Amino acid sequence: MENPAKRILLTVAYDGSGYHGWQYQPNAITIEGTLNQALCALTGEKIQVAGASRTDAGVHALGNLAVFDTHSQIPAEKFSYALNQRLPEDIVIQDSQEVAPDFHPRRCVSRKIYEYTIVNRRFPLPEYRSTAHFEYGRLDIAAMQKACRAFVGEHDFAAFCSAGAQVQTTVRKIYSLEVAAIPFQTGTLPLQEDNSNGDRGQKITIRVQGNGFLYNMVRIIAGTLLEVGKGHIPPEAVEGIIASGDRGQAGPTAPAKGLRLVEIDICNNTRDIL
Amino acid sequence: MENPAKRILLTVAYDGSGYHGWQYQPNAITIEGTLNQALCALTGEKIQVAGASRTDAGVHALGNLAVFDTHSQIPAEKFSYALNQRLPEDIVIQDSQEVAPDFHPRRCVSRKIYEYTIVNRRFPLPEYRSTAHFEYGRLDIAAMQKACRAFVGEHDFAAFCSAGAQVQTTVRKIYSLEVAAIPFQTGTLPLQEDNSNGDRGQKITIRVQGNGFLYNMVRIIAGTLLEVGKGHIPPEAVEGIIASGDRGQAGPTAPAKGLRLVEIDICNNTRDIL
Repeated sequence: MENPAKRILLTVAYDGSGYHGWQYQPNAITIEGTLNQALCALTGEKIQVAGASRTDAGVHALGNLAVFDTHSQIPAEKFSYALNQRLPEDIVIQDSQEVAPDFHPRRCVSRKIYEYTIVNRRFPLPEYRSTAHFEYGRLDIAAMQKACRAFVGEHDFAAFCSAGAQVQTTVRKIYSLEVAAIPFQTGTLPLQEDNSNGDRGQKITIRVQGNGFLYNMVRIIAGTLLEVGKGHIPPEAVEGIIASGDRGQAGPTAPAKGLRLVEIDICNNTRDIL
Repeated sequence: MENPAKRILLTVAYDGSGYHGWQYQPNAITIEGTLNQALCALTGEKIQVAGASRTDAGVHALGNLAVFDTHSQIPAEKFSYALNQRLPEDIVIQDSQEVAPDFHPRRCVSRKIYEYTIVNRRFPLPEYRSTAHFEYGRLDIAAMQKACRAFVGEHDFAAFCSAGAQVQTTVRKIYSLEVAAIPFQTGTLPLQEDNSNGDRGQKITIRVQGNGFLYNMVRIIAGTLLEVGKGHIPPEAVEGIIASGDRGQAGPTAPAKGLRLVEIDICNNTRDIL
């Protein structure tokens, strides 16, 4: 007799560099397609995961979520280990656990955290070539931090949404938006008498928490903050750009490779972990 | 008439994952071979660089050094930009400058800095898959830090040298050896009721500065500190392991991918930057 079905929640980390995004495509390698394949190979069942966030090509994740139903006898918490044996090194399951049969990770997201990483220095660093955006010109961190304030709170973010997205509302709530810069310490310029006065540049992290994000919203926020950092947009102008609802006034969509889905929190009342 | 020859010093950063090490090999892709090709294509001359440190396959660098001679009219400080146009993304020249015609980066190294990186947590992180060693079991940082002390100073490091290396002496001086651990903050476990009590693990960096290192010496030091962290070697035993001169008593050679040549300092009296 068949085992009763159970629903498993996976926490999925991946380097998106080698993938055409999360969503399944018949003729391209995607995160979702790769997970489905590994699950079918592991269980012998035809399994299709349902993800919380359909990240774009080149975007990374530390904690995307996906659920699937299975009749397998494998204990829920063992799926992470069993799947990691079958997955490529650039996708690693971080956690697996059983959830209620009606649990869906898209239905009740209480908070998402994204980070956008910028390597800001004279020359790129090879190790960051697919996980950070490179920016040559020194960025004004204080101006970027000042510009962050206008984003926080509940706003209509129509100006920060790529065209073609079908959504009921473009109102979203941003809980926090922060810009942090850490100087690179050593190791790239061996001589004291170098051209750059010992300046090895800085790693800039834009970190945003919100109740949800429109299509390309975080990348357009990052692109706008980059324009502020370069002095092309004054930080005081950002409030008006948001109010305009005009995509043309915001900055460009920053490249995908700098973006990382860090964490998704599920509402307490639907967190029916069995 | 031909331009007079000049000697150029390059500071070279690379992700070594895709290379069979630094040293030229006729039938394998190496950092040195790739640099020679780019220089020949750029200048039209048959150029062979001479490197400061022949890193092994899979080892990374932020600041390796290389010199070459050229009759090119390209200004010394423009070579970095011109070469980066022709190099793959995993090799990036960080600096180029003219040096005295008899300057050689191997002749007078005053200090080298290496780092060894360990991702110490329940599951690997995809972004570190080729730039850090993964260790599942929680490592005892305090014990590793205690073990560091025995290495500092001038010692015969025969016990920390792979067989087959031809060197005049196995005496080297370590200026400092430090172990630092930074906890991973968020993003890998979305639910508060997870199995791991919210522990997302730690990124461990072993940083060593010395006047020179024997073949595999840093990786054997890292491998020994890993054994200390696991409780297999007590920190007090390290002094005796060094004194024994017996390779069999030290830990295993830690995997190449965790190792990074951070910086090479050149003696002041030979730093004849033109």
